[in-house]
Amino acid sequence: MLEAIHSPDDLKKLNYTELNQLCREIRTLLVDTVSKTGGHLASNLGTVELSVALNRVYDASKDRILFDVGHQCYTHKILNGRMENFGTLRQFGGISGFPKPYESDADAFIAGHASDSVSVALGMAKARSLLHQNYDVCAVIGDGALTGGLAYEGIENVAASLEPIVIILNDNAMSINGNVGGMTRVLSRMRLSEGYSGLKKKYRDLVGIDSDVYRFGHRVKEELKKKLFAGNMFSALGLNYLGPIDGHDLKELESAIRLAKSLRMPVLLHVITQKGKGCHYAEAHPDIYHGIGPFNKVNGKPLSVTEGFGDVMGKELCALASQDERITAITAAMSDGTGLFAFSQHFPTRFFDVGIAEGHAVSMAAGMAKQGLIPVFAVYSSFLQRAYDMLLHDVSLQKLHVVFCVDRAGIVGNDGETHNGVFDIAFLSTVPGMKIFCPSSFRELKAMLRTAIYDCDGPVAIRYPRGGECDYREENPAPEVLLREGRDLTIAAYGTMINPVLAAAEKLAEDGITCDVVKIGVASPLDGEVLTASLRKTRSFLMAEDVCRSNCVGEHVIALCQQKGIALQRCSLLNLGEGILPQGSVKELMQACGLDSAGICRSAVALMEKDGQAHE
Amino acid sequence: MLEAIHSPDDLKKLNYTELNQLCREIRTLLVDTVSKTGGHLASNLGTVELSVALNRVYDASKDRILFDVGHQCYTHKILNGRMENFGTLRQFGGISGFPKPYESDADAFIAGHASDSVSVALGMAKARSLLHQNYDVCAVIGDGALTGGLAYEGIENVAASLEPIVIILNDNAMSINGNVGGMTRVLSRMRLSEGYSGLKKKYRDLVGIDSDVYRFGHRVKEELKKKLFAGNMFSALGLNYLGPIDGHDLKELESAIRLAKSLRMPVLLHVITQKGKGCHYAEAHPDIYHGIGPFNKVNGKPLSVTEGFGDVMGKELCALASQDERITAITAAMSDGTGLFAFSQHFPTRFFDVGIAEGHAVSMAAGMAKQGLIPVFAVYSSFLQRAYDMLLHDVSLQKLHVVFCVDRAGIVGNDGETHNGVFDIAFLSTVPGMKIFCPSSFRELKAMLRTAIYDCDGPVAIRYPRGGECDYREENPAPEVLLREGRDLTIAAYGTMINPVLAAAEKLAEDGITCDVVKIGVASPLDGEVLTASLRKTRSFLMAEDVCRSNCVGEHVIALCQQKGIALQRCSLLNLGEGILPQGSVKELMQACGLDSAGICRSAVALMEKDGQAHE
Repeated sequence: MLEAIHSPDDLKKLNYTELNQLCREIRTLLVDTVSKTGGHLASNLGTVELSVALNRVYDASKDRILFDVGHQCYTHKILNGRMENFGTLRQFGGISGFPKPYESDADAFIAGHASDSVSVALGMAKARSLLHQNYDVCAVIGDGALTGGLAYEGIENVAASLEPIVIILNDNAMSINGNVGGMTRVLSRMRLSEGYSGLKKKYRDLVGIDSDVYRFGHRVKEELKKKLFAGNMFSALGLNYLGPIDGHDLKELESAIRLAKSLRMPVLLHVITQKGKGCHYAEAHPDIYHGIGPFNKVNGKPLSVTEGFGDVMGKELCALASQDERITAITAAMSDGTGLFAFSQHFPTRFFDVGIAEGHAVSMAAGMAKQGLIPVFAVYSSFLQRAYDMLLHDVSLQKLHVVFCVDRAGIVGNDGETHNGVFDIAFLSTVPGMKIFCPSSFRELKAMLRTAIYDCDGPVAIRYPRGGECDYREENPAPEVLLREGRDLTIAAYGTMINPVLAAAEKLAEDGITCDVVKIGVASPLDGEVLTASLRKTRSFLMAEDVCRSNCVGEHVIALCQQKGIALQRCSLLNLGEGILPQGSVKELMQACGLDSAGICRSAVALMEKDGQAHE
Repeated sequence: MLEAIHSPDDLKKLNYTELNQLCREIRTLLVDTVSKTGGHLASNLGTVELSVALNRVYDASKDRILFDVGHQCYTHKILNGRMENFGTLRQFGGISGFPKPYESDADAFIAGHASDSVSVALGMAKARSLLHQNYDVCAVIGDGALTGGLAYEGIENVAASLEPIVIILNDNAMSINGNVGGMTRVLSRMRLSEGYSGLKKKYRDLVGIDSDVYRFGHRVKEELKKKLFAGNMFSALGLNYLGPIDGHDLKELESAIRLAKSLRMPVLLHVITQKGKGCHYAEAHPDIYHGIGPFNKVNGKPLSVTEGFGDVMGKELCALASQDERITAITAAMSDGTGLFAFSQHFPTRFFDVGIAEGHAVSMAAGMAKQGLIPVFAVYSSFLQRAYDMLLHDVSLQKLHVVFCVDRAGIVGNDGETHNGVFDIAFLSTVPGMKIFCPSSFRELKAMLRTAIYDCDGPVAIRYPRGGECDYREENPAPEVLLREGRDLTIAAYGTMINPVLAAAEKLAEDGITCDVVKIGVASPLDGEVLTASLRKTRSFLMAEDVCRSNCVGEHVIALCQQKGIALQRCSLLNLGEGILPQGSVKELMQACGLDSAGICRSAVALMEKDGQAHE
């Protein structure tokens, strides 16, 4: 069937038998592709029928379909012009694993971070109404994303707006690592309610097996609503609730979406799907196959497993926690990704998975710290952006001792611009009292974690990248260390960026340029002693960092030199500019940004060819 | 009665007649004091009985009472050791208008921003349980703060925790400018439900008029719960709901809090209070008397009304919106404070008060912009911190044209450190594509608003302070303007900081130091042309800005000079350091920070006395 689909219009020519065959073929394509490219498998297998139904009911080029988080958009992409290039998924120059309006009009809005779809949908619906246009707006949000407070703010406001908007709650009974909190209870009760079993029958009785809901008169719709809209939390908030519906019964699903759309009011359609549907290992372990690297498609085994900084952090934290009852660990729905799984097993009462609720995680940690615990919040860099105000208001103003393990810092690679952790140095440096450790090796991470927990006051962050250590495996956890001595140029870096810098210094020495290499262990506040001693000598400075330029460490070094009266004669700050990068492997991107050893060499040579410039 | 209260223990010696007299006296003290100091009147008048009851049931020195937002803590402060100094409320060196643990153990946690109390309470309750300690935790949250998604994240997690925590919902049926959204509907239904009328009787029947609920056996409590806990949204989320209770009936209120406390589980106690209670003008206009400057205590008339930047923005936006249907205005529960009241009256369909939900406001604005509207979000600087991720993820990555009117930027004064807008330049500068306008006069604000709406792409911010313009009233909206010419020193500033800088330059000229004064109209991205031309001449730089040092404009100027090969011989960056300031009038704080004209003069003189330092 797949070869017959050139656009969503072709979907409308198929009967349900053909459509079900199409869904099977799409699942095969998903498993084939993701087994090679890596990506989000389980959530996409769960939303094949939903995506087909949405594209039969809506015109995605005109109507606005908003996939919350967006990692479940693969089928939608396949159906909307990207089937042929689907093999380039998540590769440098290829199709993104998230909705991107620059790829296709069918991708209504960027996505990557959770819980914003309802708010965006309301903005779009208001634009439609105020500009007297005519299109539909539909947000597809998972039960995981519903744990985020932003979704709740959106729902409150959608309910009050009375705008025709369909919110599809894609309920797979787990977010990434199993849901938590009150919403889980709400949804599980609703799944078990008589509504589910009784609904199909009621629905068929009322709608009739082949009737088109568009033709329903107003009176019939009102009757229908009264019967279908159960009293529940969503109704209480003012949404019109419809469901739950079997998300793998294409026919029922499609009718329900048509109905929801036809009601011309805010509707929440509750759809039950199974993560990993149709692929035995993904069905059995939807958490493992949520986001995964390349794997063997027959048995699902990952092609390579390497130890990352997060794993090392998790192990060391367990070791420390076994000696100290005050240590707690917090994650926002990422216990596996952040290396906290073992902690969750060994210390269940001290482990807190708060759902996709980074703001709550930080405020709760502040409360814990105020009363004598030592909370450690392990979180991806780009998601910690959600808690900037809580860092300032709840933690920093009271100088509370909360430890932030900032994972996936720098370039994350194939997930692309929404997931890069390139703003953390910038925003964390503005938080009063925040100390930012940047380990370059596993041994440094362990040492810095101990220091952060036991030898620091106030907020402390430890910043490390996705993946593991490279050639540099030493332990020099001091704020600044001179790793290599030269005469001509000072090159500074922190974290794993020290690897290409050391390689570049080696190559530059062969070419007759000898470098001081300063490894910065504490990026903020800058100690400056080793750096300024070196810069007094060389007067030439090259900084290499995997963050945005604004508020980068290099700028602070320049200001420090100004303050200390060191006239730099040559200066080059290598960084990620504004901080928006395309997707690709980390290696490809580092190269493209001139942050690999060859790029650093080129910049150093160009810099040294300049005359000293501070004396114009 | 007031003179008999030296500590909360004294409350326990009074009977209800005496307590009611005490409440009347507290109200008189509140009106007397706030009429002189300014502050939050209506919310404090509404929570007198609640504060008395809390301090009779709990031991605030040991139990943790968390006032959400915290502006309703005045009575709590009066009862806990700050009655004598209460006249210094909100003054430089005086009692804060918000809870401050450094003032008293009875202030359990800092507050100022909304919706975090439930999360903090959970952290504290967990610390209590894990450290095997014995105290109670109670969060007091208004229905306004409940519109923030963070509160919902907290409630979800509290419900799942099963920790004994009492959440008191202080429901005054309005936040600052009247509530919006689905939660309002939920609460108004609950207020009207049979529960309220029937509750008193049921409660008395069960509890008995004088019985102590602590003596209740388990069975009785279970019976009670079944009868009292209505099925509603909070119950659905897993909280045990109790109420609604009359928040001005001290006896009933106290019994209900004792009951809630005794249940040893997560309880939400719904209390109905009246904002402004007991003061006729505050009862009639709780919005006006939410936060107010000094006023005539007889008739409530403000002692002075001056036009502020926010008012000018609101007027100009109305003028523009009357010509352009695409313009919408958004506020997060601050339509009056941000100057949008007139807009809300003239263009109700294009005006959006989203509740205390800054994240939603930004994501919704992004959706509007994507579909062709021109949304303008007027928001206080320190509250925009809540939406940092939405600025990056929803607006910036897609280069969407959203205009942010950032009010209360810089030092806000008497509200103190939680409300200062001193991080905005730092975090807004990191947002890719963000342009930051800084008007120094009303005329510049108007010009820049037009430019932001019609001549810019992508995200644009316009940053202005609380209050009005000063001596400088010209219109020079260019990115950089040389306002005064000299030979010796370049002084740069933006916004209303140009006033003390111009005054300082005048005084310095009398002392023989002549200055270039560069007014920066666009703080980011820096244009740099006028600045670098001036600095090439003077080689001496003094920057005066009312923001934190990290990522301040001065550091960018230094980096720019380095890049352009301008060796600065003298350099001084005047700013607010880490950005945590005490409360006081803006004038007092500017003086204390050395940012008034005298301070700038002193710094300039000291700087010019130094030898050129860049040639060591």
